[in-house]
Amino acid sequence: MNKEIGIGMLGYAFMGKAHSHAWTDLPIFFWPLPAIPRLIIVYGRHEERVKDAMVRYGFKRYTTDWREVIRDPEVEILDNCLPNYMHKDPCIEAVEAGKHVVCEKPLARDSIEAREMRDVAKKAKVKTMCAFNYRFVPAVRLAKKILEEGILGRVFHFRARYLQDWIVSPEFPLVWRLRKEYAGSGPLGDLGSHIIDLARFLVGEITAVTGVTRTFIEERPLPEDPTKKGKVTVEDAFSATVEFENGAIGTLEASRFATGRKNYNNFEINCEKGSIEFNLERLNELRVYVVEPDERKYLEGWHEIIVTDPAHPFIEYYWPPGHILGWEHTFVNELHHFLDCVVNDKDVGPYGATFEDGYRCAVVCDAILKAAEEGKRIAVEY
Amino acid sequence: MNKEIGIGMLGYAFMGKAHSHAWTDLPIFFWPLPAIPRLIIVYGRHEERVKDAMVRYGFKRYTTDWREVIRDPEVEILDNCLPNYMHKDPCIEAVEAGKHVVCEKPLARDSIEAREMRDVAKKAKVKTMCAFNYRFVPAVRLAKKILEEGILGRVFHFRARYLQDWIVSPEFPLVWRLRKEYAGSGPLGDLGSHIIDLARFLVGEITAVTGVTRTFIEERPLPEDPTKKGKVTVEDAFSATVEFENGAIGTLEASRFATGRKNYNNFEINCEKGSIEFNLERLNELRVYVVEPDERKYLEGWHEIIVTDPAHPFIEYYWPPGHILGWEHTFVNELHHFLDCVVNDKDVGPYGATFEDGYRCAVVCDAILKAAEEGKRIAVEY
Amino acid sequence: MNKEIGIGMLGYAFMGKAHSHAWTDLPIFFWPLPAIPRLIIVYGRHEERVKDAMVRYGFKRYTTDWREVIRDPEVEILDNCLPNYMHKDPCIEAVEAGKHVVCEKPLARDSIEAREMRDVAKKAKVKTMCAFNYRFVPAVRLAKKILEEGILGRVFHFRARYLQDWIVSPEFPLVWRLRKEYAGSGPLGDLGSHIIDLARFLVGEITAVTGVTRTFIEERPLPEDPTKKGKVTVEDAFSATVEFENGAIGTLEASRFATGRKNYNNFEINCEKGSIEFNLERLNELRVYVVEPDERKYLEGWHEIIVTDPAHPFIEYYWPPGHILGWEHTFVNELHHFLDCVVNDKDVGPYGATFEDGYRCAVVCDAILKAAEEGKRIAVEY
Amino acid sequence: MNKEIGIGMLGYAFMGKAHSHAWTDLPIFFWPLPAIPRLIIVYGRHEERVKDAMVRYGFKRYTTDWREVIRDPEVEILDNCLPNYMHKDPCIEAVEAGKHVVCEKPLARDSIEAREMRDVAKKAKVKTMCAFNYRFVPAVRLAKKILEEGILGRVFHFRARYLQDWIVSPEFPLVWRLRKEYAGSGPLGDLGSHIIDLARFLVGEITAVTGVTRTFIEERPLPEDPTKKGKVTVEDAFSATVEFENGAIGTLEASRFATGRKNYNNFEINCEKGSIEFNLERLNELRVYVVEPDERKYLEGWHEIIVTDPAHPFIEYYWPPGHILGWEHTFVNELHHFLDCVVNDKDVGPYGATFEDGYRCAVVCDAILKAAEEGKRIAVEY
Repeated sequence: MNKEIGIGMLGYAFMGKAHSHAWTDLPIFFWPLPAIPRLIIVYGRHEERVKDAMVRYGFKRYTTDWREVIRDPEVEILDNCLPNYMHKDPCIEAVEAGKHVVCEKPLARDSIEAREMRDVAKKAKVKTMCAFNYRFVPAVRLAKKILEEGILGRVFHFRARYLQDWIVSPEFPLVWRLRKEYAGSGPLGDLGSHIIDLARFLVGEITAVTGVTRTFIEERPLPEDPTKKGKVTVEDAFSATVEFENGAIGTLEASRFATGRKNYNNFEINCEKGSIEFNLERLNELRVYVVEPDERKYLEGWHEIIVTDPAHPFIEYYWPPGHILGWEHTFVNELHHFLDCVVNDKDVGPYGATFEDGYRCAVVCDAILKAAEEGKRIAVEY
Repeated sequence: MNKEIGIGMLGYAFMGKAHSHAWTDLPIFFWPLPAIPRLIIVYGRHEERVKDAMVRYGFKRYTTDWREVIRDPEVEILDNCLPNYMHKDPCIEAVEAGKHVVCEKPLARDSIEAREMRDVAKKAKVKTMCAFNYRFVPAVRLAKKILEEGILGRVFHFRARYLQDWIVSPEFPLVWRLRKEYAGSGPLGDLGSHIIDLARFLVGEITAVTGVTRTFIEERPLPEDPTKKGKVTVEDAFSATVEFENGAIGTLEASRFATGRKNYNNFEINCEKGSIEFNLERLNELRVYVVEPDERKYLEGWHEIIVTDPAHPFIEYYWPPGHILGWEHTFVNELHHFLDCVVNDKDVGPYGATFEDGYRCAVVCDAILKAAEEGKRIAVEY
Repeated sequence: MNKEIGIGMLGYAFMGKAHSHAWTDLPIFFWPLPAIPRLIIVYGRHEERVKDAMVRYGFKRYTTDWREVIRDPEVEILDNCLPNYMHKDPCIEAVEAGKHVVCEKPLARDSIEAREMRDVAKKAKVKTMCAFNYRFVPAVRLAKKILEEGILGRVFHFRARYLQDWIVSPEFPLVWRLRKEYAGSGPLGDLGSHIIDLARFLVGEITAVTGVTRTFIEERPLPEDPTKKGKVTVEDAFSATVEFENGAIGTLEASRFATGRKNYNNFEINCEKGSIEFNLERLNELRVYVVEPDERKYLEGWHEIIVTDPAHPFIEYYWPPGHILGWEHTFVNELHHFLDCVVNDKDVGPYGATFEDGYRCAVVCDAILKAAEEGKRIAVEY
Repeated sequence: MNKEIGIGMLGYAFMGKAHSHAWTDLPIFFWPLPAIPRLIIVYGRHEERVKDAMVRYGFKRYTTDWREVIRDPEVEILDNCLPNYMHKDPCIEAVEAGKHVVCEKPLARDSIEAREMRDVAKKAKVKTMCAFNYRFVPAVRLAKKILEEGILGRVFHFRARYLQDWIVSPEFPLVWRLRKEYAGSGPLGDLGSHIIDLARFLVGEITAVTGVTRTFIEERPLPEDPTKKGKVTVEDAFSATVEFENGAIGTLEASRFATGRKNYNNFEINCEKGSIEFNLERLNELRVYVVEPDERKYLEGWHEIIVTDPAHPFIEYYWPPGHILGWEHTFVNELHHFLDCVVNDKDVGPYGATFEDGYRCAVVCDAILKAAEEGKRIAVEY
C-alpha cells in the first residue's frame, strides 16, 4: 500500500491554485512518491468561493476558519498561500501544533515578523520551508550546479531585475499588494525577495546595499468603491546596488511599471571563466558563457541551453527533450522536495529555502528600504 | 451536482501520461467544466506496468485486453494513445460501440487505413477527434486568429520543419517508430504529420508536392537483443516542396538527425501585409511581422509576442501574464475542446482536427513518399 | 615605396559603390598591403552620373564606353559590377586583354553563358573571381573552418533560404531584375545563387534537385512610364529540395515576397556531432551546436558566437571584440583576397569563388528551373 | 568645384583609425557633402608609426609635435583622438587658435578639467563637439525620435550597463586605461560616460546617484617590463542607482570583468505606453514595445526592428534594407554631423554632444565616485 499524507491549504486564489495543482500533479510525474498527498481541507474567507475551490481542486472539505485547518487531525502539512499579513500567525500556530509548514514568500511583511517565525521554526521538530519556488526552476538549479562545481571560478558581478507591468494604468485599483499593512512593501517584497533569494542561493551573503525607491502613482481607486481613491502606501519600484561577502558587486531592481515586461525575472552572473544568464519568461533556457581553451577559442560563446535534457535537474520526471515545462512546474518540483524532506526527514536547505533564508531575505529588503530613506549605504546585519 | 463523464484510456506511456495528466488538470484550470472527467480504466500489455499506471494516474481499474475498455459501460470516451498500428481497429470498434473517440496522431499508418477510419466516423453519431495537439498551442491559435481576420492579406509562403535529434547515434535501438509495420513511416508520419496538419489548418489545402527521403543509418541494434541488428524500414528524414490551392508555395521537412534541435517544430508564413513565425521550443511566443502605415513605418518590425495575455487564446484559464505554459497544456486545451464537443454536441472542427483532417494529412504523407520514390511532382488528391 | 595596382570599374550603382568603397578601405584595414589599389577609371552609361561617381569615389577618370576601361593601360584589374546581361562580354574581353577580372555574381544569366566564361578563364593566365562575397563573412568563414576541421562529423542536412520583401507591392516597377533578358532569372539567380554557392562551399557538390517556382504578380508598371505595364518574365520565388554527393539532403528557397525578411540569408547545417546556423541580418554572429562529452552534457547547447574575436577569420584587421562589422566589409575581405591572389600569384579557390564555381552554381540554378518546369527530379551534371 | 576642408588628427591608434576611416568614407556615403574633408596632418609620439599611419590613412604629412597640427594653416578641424590626459590642453589651444575641435570622450579626466574646456568653448566662435558616437547609431537616434514624439509617454525607468571582459586575466598589463593619471577613472569614464551621455540624451538630467566601485585585481604587470608589477589606480567596475529630474529611476553599471560581454552597451527605457531596448553588439536592431489599442491587444509585443529601412535615421546614405552597418559607421555619421555644423554654421547640439554635455557627463561620473567613497546619495550639481 502507498503511504499517504494529508495537506491543509490556506487560500485558493493565485497561489492556492498553483499549490493545489502541484500536489495533484505529484504522483503523475514524481513516481514512486515517498507518500501520496491527499488534499484534506482548504480555507478561504468567502464560503461560496472556497466551497467551489474544494470541488475543483479535489479537497475533502473546506472551512472559513483557518484555525480549523491547523486543528484538523488528518492534516500533516500546512500549506500557507495567504497574503503576507497572514503568514506569521498561522505558520507559528501550525508549527506549534506539530504540523509541517510550507509558507509562501515573502516569509513575512518585514524582518521583525520574519525573525519571530524563524525563531519558532528553529526550535521545532517539524519541517518548515519558505516557498521560493524559483530555486526549483530546472534552469536555476542547473546554474546552481554549475556554480557549485566551480568551473566558472570567482564571481565578479550579480545583476538581477524582476520587472512586471500590471499597475501602469492609474485606473488599476488599490489592491492589497499596494497597501503596506497587508503586503509590508511593494515590488521589493513581492518580486525583489525572489531575486534577493536567488542572489543568496547562487552567489552568497549580501553585506551592504544602497538604493532608491519611487511611488509613481500615489492614489488609486478603491476596489470596493472605484469612485473613491485611497493612498498607495508601498513603493512602485526600487533600484539598489549590492555588495557580497565574496567581493562581488551588482544591482537589484524590481518594478511593476516596466511596460512590456510581463514576468521578467532576469539575472546575470559574471565570473572569471564564464557567465550565466536567465530569464523567467523563457524558463526552459539557460544561457551560459564558457571560456574555451586556446585551441578551441573560436568556439567560445554563450551556450543557449534548452534545459530539458535527461542530464538536467528534474527533467527525468517529465518529458523527452524539447518538450518544455511551464511556470507551474516550479511548484511541483518544490513540493516534491518538501514532501521528501518531511517523509524522509531530510534537511530543507540548502536547495529549499528555510525560514532562516526567508528571514535573511527580509533583512536585506529592510536594508534597501532604509538605504533609500536615509540616502546611505546600509550594512546588512542578520 | 456536477455532471461526470467516464474516460477509457489505451496506453500509459508517453502519450498516455500526457493525456491522463490533461484529464486530471482539466477541473483545476477549465472551470466550470461541461462535465468532470473520471478516469475509469486504462489498458496496457504489461500487467505490472499498467497496474502501476492505474495507481499513479488515478484510474479505477486496469486491463490487458483493450476490448475490455471499449466494452466498459462506464466509459463514454475512448482515448487511444497506442502506437500507430493500433489506431485503426480499436477506434473503429469503439465508434461502432457508440463511444466518442479521440485518437493520437497520425490517424493511421497510411491513407488507406485512415480513409477507413474516416468513413466509419463520418457515418457515426459519436464525436471523433484526431489529436493534433499543436492546434491547441495558444500561440498557434493566435496565428490562426490573425490569419482568419485577414489583416495579413494574401499568403505567399509556408515553410515548416520539425526537427529532432534523438536517433543520431547508431547505437540507438530499432524501436517501433523505426519499423514500417508499426509506424507506417518515420519522421514523416510522426513529425511531418504535425506540420502538414498545421499547413492545412493555417494556410489551406495542399495540391502538389515534390520530395526526397533518406535513411542515414540502415541497421540498428534490436531492443530485445542489442547484439543483433535489424533493418530500419522507414525514412530517417524527408524534405519536400509544397504547393497550396491558394497559390502559396513552400517547403516541409522533418528529421530525427538534426543535432541540437530537440523539438523544433518551426514554421513561417509570409503574407502580403506581414508574416508569422513559431517555434515549439518557445511555445509561449509568437513572432508576427506587421506592416505599419507610412507614418509609423519606423516602428515596423517583428512583434515578439509573449502569448500569455488575457487577450490571447486559452490564457483566461491559466495564470497572469508572463507565467508561461508547458508543452503538456496543449493536451489540456485539446481535451477540454473535445469534452465540450462531446457534452454540448458541438463540431470538433474546424479548430479541432477531425478524422477527415487525419485522413487528408495521411494522403499528403503518402504523396510525399511517392514523390520521393518516383522522382516526380505528385498532385494531391483526396 | 609601396607598390600600386590600377583598378577599372564597370558600374557605380549598388555594387559599384560597394566595390569602390572596399578598394578605398583596403589600406586602412589590411596593412601592409601587397599593393595599394588606385582607382583609375569608372564606366557608366549616364555621363553626368558616372562623372559624379568619379569624384565621389575618387577615380581619376570616367567613361561611357566600357571598352575604354579594358583598353586603359593603367588598369590591371577589371571589376565588373554591371547587371547580369553585361557580365559575359566585358569579362571575356578583359581576360583576353590580359586583365585580371573580378565579376559580380551570378556569373552570367545562365549556365551556357557561364560555361563560355569559365572556358576562357581556364585557359588564361590572369586571375578571375566570381564575387560571391558571403564566403568572406567572418562567420561564414568560421563555419567553413569548423567543418574543415571535422569536429562536427558527417553532414546530414543543409537548409537555406534567402528571403527579401522589396517587391511585395504591385506598384513596384518592372526593373531589370524582373526581366529575363537582363537578369536571366529572378531570386533564383540573384539570391538563390548565393545559397547554392554556400551549399557547395560548405557541404559539397549537389547531385539532384526538385523544385517549384511562382510568379505572384505577373505584370508591373514600366519604370520609364508607370501608366503602362509590362510582363514580369522571371519567377518571384522558388522552393527546392536538394541532394548532395555526400548523402546529405535539404531545401533551398529564395523569395522577394517574404514580408519582414529584409536580407535574410539563413542557413542551417546539421551534422553528427553538432550543427551550424547563420543569418546574414546578424552577420557578426554564428550559432554552433557542439555535442559535449557525457560529463559536460548539461552544458550542451547552441554556442552563440560573436564573431569579432582575434581568434576569428579576418578580425585581426579590424576592431576589438564586440565592435561589429557591417555588410560592406564582406567586400573589403573579398577584394583583399583577390588582390593577394593577383599580386602574389595565389589560387583564388578554394576560399574565393572561381569562374568554375560561378559556372557550377549556374548549372544548379538551371536544374532547379527545369525541375520546376517539368515536375521532375533533375540530376545535376556539370 | 567642391569645397574642401582640412583635417588635423591627433593620434592614429584605435580612435585615430576609426576617425581617419570615417573622414575617408564620408564622400562615398554622404553625397553631396558640404565640403570634402582632406586629411592634412597626423600627430603621434612614435615617428615610424605615425609615418606609417600617414601613408595608410592618406594624410599629406605627419608630425611628432602636436602643436604643429594646431599651427598648420591648412588645418581647419582638429580631431583629438589622444588618451584622456591629452584632451584638455590641445583642445583649448586649438580652440584659441580658431580651429574647430572634435574631441574623443570622455571630455577630460574629471569635471574640473572638463569645466575648463567647456568654459573656453563657450566663449569661442568655433564649433566644438565631444565625440559621444553612440548618439549616432541609427537605432539610438531612432530611440530618440520615438521618445521625442511622445508616443511612449512618461518615463519610469532607465537602466544601462556597459560590459566588457578584456582585463579579466591578471596577466593583462597595466595599460594607460588602468592608471588614474592618464585615464582619470576606469570603466566609469571609459564606458560609463557613454551610458551617462545616453541617459541624458534620451531621458533627461540626472539629479542624484548612489554607488559602489570595485577593483578586483589590484596589481598588474607593467607593459614595459612584465616581470614587475604596478598598482591599478582606477576602479575595475562600478554599479550605481540613478534618479532623473523627470522622476524616473534606474541603474547604471560598467565593468571590464563581465566575461562573455564583449561590447555590451545595453539600455532599457520603460515608459507609460511602451519600452525601448538596445544592445550595441546588435547595433542594427532596436527593440520597442508598443502598447496596442484594445482591439489589437493580441498583437502587443516587442517590435524587433532592423534599423536599416529608408524610414530610419541615416539609412538613406547607405544600403538597401537588411544590409547591416558596422560599429565604425557611428563615426561616419557623427563626423558628417560635425562637418555640417562647421560648414553651415549649425548647432552641434542637441543631436551631437557639446562640450557642455561632456562636462555634465563628467560631473555625474565624479558624483558616482564620491557616492561610492562616502557611502552616500550624492546630489548632482552642474
